[in-house]
Amino acid sequence: MADSKKPQLWSKGAELNALVHRFTVDQDYLLDARLFRFDCLASAAHARMLGHVDLLSEAQVRALCDALHGLYISPLSISPEQEDCHTAIEQALTAALGDAGKRIHVARSRNDQVLTALRLLLRHESHAISEKLAACTAALLRFATRFELSLMPGYTHLQRAMPSSFGLWAQGFAEGLLEELDASAGLLIRLDRCPLGAAAGFGVPLAIDREYSAALLAFSAVQRAPTDCMNSRGRHEQALLDWLCSIAHTLEKLAWDLVLYSSQEFDLIRLPDAFTTGSSIMPNKRNPDVAELLRAHCRAIAGYGDSHRRVMSGLPSSYHRDFQLGKAPLLAAIASMHEMLSVLLELIPQITPQLENAKARCDDALYATHAAYAKVAGGMSFRDAYQATAAELQSGAMDATAFKVSDARANRFGLHAAHVALAAHQARIETLQSATQTHLNRVWFSD
Amino acid sequence: MADSKKPQLWSKGAELNALVHRFTVDQDYLLDARLFRFDCLASAAHARMLGHVDLLSEAQVRALCDALHGLYISPLSISPEQEDCHTAIEQALTAALGDAGKRIHVARSRNDQVLTALRLLLRHESHAISEKLAACTAALLRFATRFELSLMPGYTHLQRAMPSSFGLWAQGFAEGLLEELDASAGLLIRLDRCPLGAAAGFGVPLAIDREYSAALLAFSAVQRAPTDCMNSRGRHEQALLDWLCSIAHTLEKLAWDLVLYSSQEFDLIRLPDAFTTGSSIMPNKRNPDVAELLRAHCRAIAGYGDSHRRVMSGLPSSYHRDFQLGKAPLLAAIASMHEMLSVLLELIPQITPQLENAKARCDDALYATHAAYAKVAGGMSFRDAYQATAAELQSGAMDATAFKVSDARANRFGLHAAHVALAAHQARIETLQSATQTHLNRVWFSD
Amino acid sequence: MADSKKPQLWSKGAELNALVHRFTVDQDYLLDARLFRFDCLASAAHARMLGHVDLLSEAQVRALCDALHGLYISPLSISPEQEDCHTAIEQALTAALGDAGKRIHVARSRNDQVLTALRLLLRHESHAISEKLAACTAALLRFATRFELSLMPGYTHLQRAMPSSFGLWAQGFAEGLLEELDASAGLLIRLDRCPLGAAAGFGVPLAIDREYSAALLAFSAVQRAPTDCMNSRGRHEQALLDWLCSIAHTLEKLAWDLVLYSSQEFDLIRLPDAFTTGSSIMPNKRNPDVAELLRAHCRAIAGYGDSHRRVMSGLPSSYHRDFQLGKAPLLAAIASMHEMLSVLLELIPQITPQLENAKARCDDALYATHAAYAKVAGGMSFRDAYQATAAELQSGAMDATAFKVSDARANRFGLHAAHVALAAHQARIETLQSATQTHLNRVWFSD
Amino acid sequence: MADSKKPQLWSKGAELNALVHRFTVDQDYLLDARLFRFDCLASAAHARMLGHVDLLSEAQVRALCDALHGLYISPLSISPEQEDCHTAIEQALTAALGDAGKRIHVARSRNDQVLTALRLLLRHESHAISEKLAACTAALLRFATRFELSLMPGYTHLQRAMPSSFGLWAQGFAEGLLEELDASAGLLIRLDRCPLGAAAGFGVPLAIDREYSAALLAFSAVQRAPTDCMNSRGRHEQALLDWLCSIAHTLEKLAWDLVLYSSQEFDLIRLPDAFTTGSSIMPNKRNPDVAELLRAHCRAIAGYGDSHRRVMSGLPSSYHRDFQLGKAPLLAAIASMHEMLSVLLELIPQITPQLENAKARCDDALYATHAAYAKVAGGMSFRDAYQATAAELQSGAMDATAFKVSDARANRFGLHAAHVALAAHQARIETLQSATQTHLNRVWFSD
Repeated sequence: MADSKKPQLWSKGAELNALVHRFTVDQDYLLDARLFRFDCLASAAHARMLGHVDLLSEAQVRALCDALHGLYISPLSISPEQEDCHTAIEQALTAALGDAGKRIHVARSRNDQVLTALRLLLRHESHAISEKLAACTAALLRFATRFELSLMPGYTHLQRAMPSSFGLWAQGFAEGLLEELDASAGLLIRLDRCPLGAAAGFGVPLAIDREYSAALLAFSAVQRAPTDCMNSRGRHEQALLDWLCSIAHTLEKLAWDLVLYSSQEFDLIRLPDAFTTGSSIMPNKRNPDVAELLRAHCRAIAGYGDSHRRVMSGLPSSYHRDFQLGKAPLLAAIASMHEMLSVLLELIPQITPQLENAKARCDDALYATHAAYAKVAGGMSFRDAYQATAAELQSGAMDATAFKVSDARANRFGLHAAHVALAAHQARIETLQSATQTHLNRVWFSD
Repeated sequence: MADSKKPQLWSKGAELNALVHRFTVDQDYLLDARLFRFDCLASAAHARMLGHVDLLSEAQVRALCDALHGLYISPLSISPEQEDCHTAIEQALTAALGDAGKRIHVARSRNDQVLTALRLLLRHESHAISEKLAACTAALLRFATRFELSLMPGYTHLQRAMPSSFGLWAQGFAEGLLEELDASAGLLIRLDRCPLGAAAGFGVPLAIDREYSAALLAFSAVQRAPTDCMNSRGRHEQALLDWLCSIAHTLEKLAWDLVLYSSQEFDLIRLPDAFTTGSSIMPNKRNPDVAELLRAHCRAIAGYGDSHRRVMSGLPSSYHRDFQLGKAPLLAAIASMHEMLSVLLELIPQITPQLENAKARCDDALYATHAAYAKVAGGMSFRDAYQATAAELQSGAMDATAFKVSDARANRFGLHAAHVALAAHQARIETLQSATQTHLNRVWFSD
Repeated sequence: MADSKKPQLWSKGAELNALVHRFTVDQDYLLDARLFRFDCLASAAHARMLGHVDLLSEAQVRALCDALHGLYISPLSISPEQEDCHTAIEQALTAALGDAGKRIHVARSRNDQVLTALRLLLRHESHAISEKLAACTAALLRFATRFELSLMPGYTHLQRAMPSSFGLWAQGFAEGLLEELDASAGLLIRLDRCPLGAAAGFGVPLAIDREYSAALLAFSAVQRAPTDCMNSRGRHEQALLDWLCSIAHTLEKLAWDLVLYSSQEFDLIRLPDAFTTGSSIMPNKRNPDVAELLRAHCRAIAGYGDSHRRVMSGLPSSYHRDFQLGKAPLLAAIASMHEMLSVLLELIPQITPQLENAKARCDDALYATHAAYAKVAGGMSFRDAYQATAAELQSGAMDATAFKVSDARANRFGLHAAHVALAAHQARIETLQSATQTHLNRVWFSD
Repeated sequence: MADSKKPQLWSKGAELNALVHRFTVDQDYLLDARLFRFDCLASAAHARMLGHVDLLSEAQVRALCDALHGLYISPLSISPEQEDCHTAIEQALTAALGDAGKRIHVARSRNDQVLTALRLLLRHESHAISEKLAACTAALLRFATRFELSLMPGYTHLQRAMPSSFGLWAQGFAEGLLEELDASAGLLIRLDRCPLGAAAGFGVPLAIDREYSAALLAFSAVQRAPTDCMNSRGRHEQALLDWLCSIAHTLEKLAWDLVLYSSQEFDLIRLPDAFTTGSSIMPNKRNPDVAELLRAHCRAIAGYGDSHRRVMSGLPSSYHRDFQLGKAPLLAAIASMHEMLSVLLELIPQITPQLENAKARCDDALYATHAAYAKVAGGMSFRDAYQATAAELQSGAMDATAFKVSDARANRFGLHAAHVALAAHQARIETLQSATQTHLNRVWFSD
């Protein structure tokens, strides 16, 4: 193969020593495995657009799309010499098709190419993670429904505060995740712009049709200014990361509670054996390692988010090679989130509330607010009722029997509405995913 | 005043020593000045709801709303002894109204009270910052229109890359900010849930009507699970902070360019005298301090965002006093953003492109891509054209004259569409702001 | 006063509008109150050096030093118009002394001036915080000695693991803080270089004697390259912040334990009433707010550290105005640490172990490792002993009586050595502080 | 092999499903390759100590040390089933030696085992990185010496400020790195405590001799309290990371300058061809990718530092599984730093100052401070001289000829002293490294 001696697209013949090559490639040839198929898609759309404006012949377009479809179905592994997926794909096309392969890079740059592949990945992941998130939310809502009336102490400051239920505890997390599903809409608005054709950030001196390729890739619009396309490197990735961090903010609380509530001291839940591990020194232990790692992954995701922001900011406008190092934290955070949600989906239904113990911990003092409010209902002002109840508590005169009976909490907190909201999200996500996939598949076979 | 000996709402008489008091109050009594009016609003809505469900008399509601309106119009300063705005307001109500003041705290806790006040503040700020952001975007688009055809080198890697224009440079930032205006819609979805009535996180054992107070406060819906309300402390603040960080990501590039392009070496722009300062040792200097501080504020905002995430996460579910420390970075970031946008609004129209110098820096090599594409248009494959042009460049044979003439770039990048998009946003923001304000004003005077 | 119309040192007469002035001054005029006295000291040393190399007369030096001493004893408040302590001091000198005041700024720049003042502050704070840290460590060691043999369960993964004691628990934190006292030596090495005379980063074209002023300010050496002086802005501040973050890493664990162990479920300690607070809704609550705020301050300090690193990095070499924004997180973190240590010093002696309850939680299973080791002592391999003990535990056959008796842990973990190490540190810190202060006082009265 | 069905040390027979196993193992089996040899060393020291206190026979100790030495020389790869290096090593020992292998885990836990291996790795890396750092510093000092008198403009705020030299520019970075070499001493103090024998954080109920194993592993002392050992997980790693971040703070400025100064606009240096790359679209480009990636790695290292702090903090005292996730950022930061220093070592000598161009940029205005100081030398006060020079500059009356001649700056900034300081560090590091290695080698062959 003629190109084998100068595999870099930009090679002008100078020898790069091995150290520099390794440093500049870094992990890119591995990380780009995640981008490979998205770059095939974007390249096919680009080829069709070039055909549409007569920069490629119909036959060339067809040949390129067929070859790209083959790579999409059976992605190649990328060698360190190839550096990234873009070179690997172009080399494969040139090897297979000769001249047509050498023509595909007209009217684009690796800068807009990687932006487009990343944008497709971000959109794909926002769908995929939403789907898993909805599944976890469903698991939480099923748990909440099952234990809606199962009493447990509600804690504030880790102190027993007021009566709560296992249902309300689980519903809290479900509602938090439902808000993230709401928020995914805002994320998709950001992502719904196609940067392809921005080239190196200043457009191309050719009459191309950016709307054409944007539509093929299922974007509602072109990302207009090519300068903005370059400046947006990192911005969309960060928007996804911020969303993941917000999801993690809720999951961390769940994981923390799993660790805390399964301690012998709280003893409010039991975790399934398969999700706990032993100690290398103490035969008596069953440790909540999975819950602890879930908790740690939430902090790790926050770390990826911060790291990404650091790497991708602090620079003048336009493209800088620094951007390459943003891929690692982005892809790591996505992988972490997928794993967490998969684990949680298995774990949630297997959490066993310790119902008797939970009930036993609901002592009379937990009903102090009820007692104060009973006095309010009898006409006392709240502040006076508060002081009076505090005095009763201290003297042991408070009797909570009546409140315990009356505190039926069935459907008090809109659990049904949460189920309805989730169903709507699940329908929306399914539609989005299948519509997008159907649309993208047309890239290969249209005309 | 009878209450002077037990100013804390929760006082049970024990003496807190001064050190502990100072430590627990921290800056809260100062920071809460920003929440004061929002707490008045929320308290009035709460009072009306209590009247609606017969926990307050009509006369008490009227008295409370009138007193709260007075405080809203003329906020009090909060003393360190009062700790926070909630105590300051309740003390003022009790001092003025006696028994009615002692009744207002029924069916709520400081936990949902501060959540509600913060939610109102976040919504208010998302409107106010959007408005200023739109104004800055307008300034950038006016600049872009004025200098749409004024040539400057486009840089990548800080190396001259391809011909660009001052217009395209400025449009890039405007488009980035337009995306933030788009994104504000997603933020508002998150914020549009009322936490009032969640109390300490487990609801209240009274028949209250949360939808009623939510509607009064111009929220579309109640934030259902009280457990989620508590878990969401920090989540909504973070969503606003993430948005500010994303805005800062774009502004940082603008500020960096202002510093770089006004250096003697780049000399592409001049900054107005009023925005530069001198040196205490070197009489020859005019330093771009304002642009540097803008740049630094962008990093500071990222720092506030990270700090807030740190402080507000890492905890089991429910309320913890730790949350108090999240107010400082939130309010600091909001203040920074306001100042930055105010400064930029003044600065942008006064940036003076150095047109001649910019043109002079557009040497022939800048048109190498044009030359390669001309060969492509003539039938050569891009890869061959690329190599041929590189060879011409090296031998000095490349002639760029033709490309310089043909590179009229008028309206090539959708500048008009950007103006249209901005106008739509400006209309939307104005409507939102005035509708919300009108709605909220009804809290005082309804019935 | 003639200078009143051009208060900025660098004023060249152009009007700065109020907005820009407020933006560039920011909080500096407030924050610089912390630097005021250090700048007086450094200015006096600078004046003496100028006298030493005949750039000031003896009389001018004396007048300046006397005036500076007056300002050192009675610092002025800095007005927003003055911007920072440097201008405030120079204006005061010029107002009092006329020509001599206008002469003091020769051979220095505000750049090395602020570096020097900060360096003095950092050294001062590393001494002052070490002193408080040693006092807290002493309190922890006294607690450890008092409860050395008081049994409590040792937890790993929040699960009961092996027998421990309240003494060992407290000693752990004390040892962590002792390591920080060790580490302060490394910090002081970094700080022990004087940047004065670096001017704007390129030295001054005058025959000054930097060793002379360095020695007056009690530095062992000059920070040689003026370019390094500028590049080091942020580096020394960060070194102190990293140290504070490491201290906070240990204090956070202590604060977390205080919250957790004082919950009704763990019930291992009681916190004094003065360090807990009540709830605004629940009359039954006493919340560990102080411990929670200590915990949150530890995360806030980490946030200040990260924020500072963000603001102070990401820039080419030499001075940039961005640096100004590093002061706020630095000073905030120092203030936080002082408050935390003051609170802990009061709190630690008042922590009351719940001895009976702690003992009751030490069930037989806690001695499983002991049982396995007893088998090892009898000749079994550890892995076999581990499996055998696990089987006994499951069948209920394990008897821990013997182990409970034999587990006397007096002085097993070097508590005495910790006391000795602390005493050495306390002596060292006291010597350092008084020697430095004595040395610095000579600035005013030498010759 | 009998153990093949229960490969986890703590296996009690329950099935872990594949998902959970993958989640809990994560990347540990890969990351632990870096710890493998350190764990062999620590295990050999532990075996010797067990022999010393008669918990192992002399023959068992010899057999274990021989087998461990074999593993040290030829490390095994760790399978996902083995999870970590500790299990892999223990399994290999048990497979080779039978009963002796099952005996080695007595009197330790994986908790202190991983702490000890990490401590050895941290000490090793602090030596190894110091060595490379010294080599880079040497390269910078050679550059500084070579170009000590080569004039270039000194910039502040990216504005031309005062005359500087390429030598002074490079010396600045060298001095910054010398400070890091100074600081490594403080780091080593922290690391010089042996945690082995802390077991799970509460010691072991056996008469072991921790001083004995500490001495074998070349530690000056035991880390006394086992509770502190557990609490210190993350603290020592963070200390190394903080040091790397501080190094990166200096390197980032160097890398930034390389990018900026090699732009066509500044044109102060040329980077060697082998360290620049081309563009995929623009045949005219040679981009400073290596310098940009160096710059980005500096931010990435800061990100690893922050991420590590996040993951390792926020927890009560004692061991939690969360700690596992701290390994990845720690090892990634170390690898980044090694690569950066290797690249810089090659790059620094190949930086070519553009001497003529640099000189040409030193215009008269650059000597304004000199002019003002000449007036001061003539008796004028600095403030008056400053104003007078500013006026001369504006009117064009300033003549810099005399200052240009007189500004010979040979050895003005202690370059020789820097060389001397470096030589001392190099000798110290070499001694430290070889002494430690010699000491550690005795583990295998002592007795």
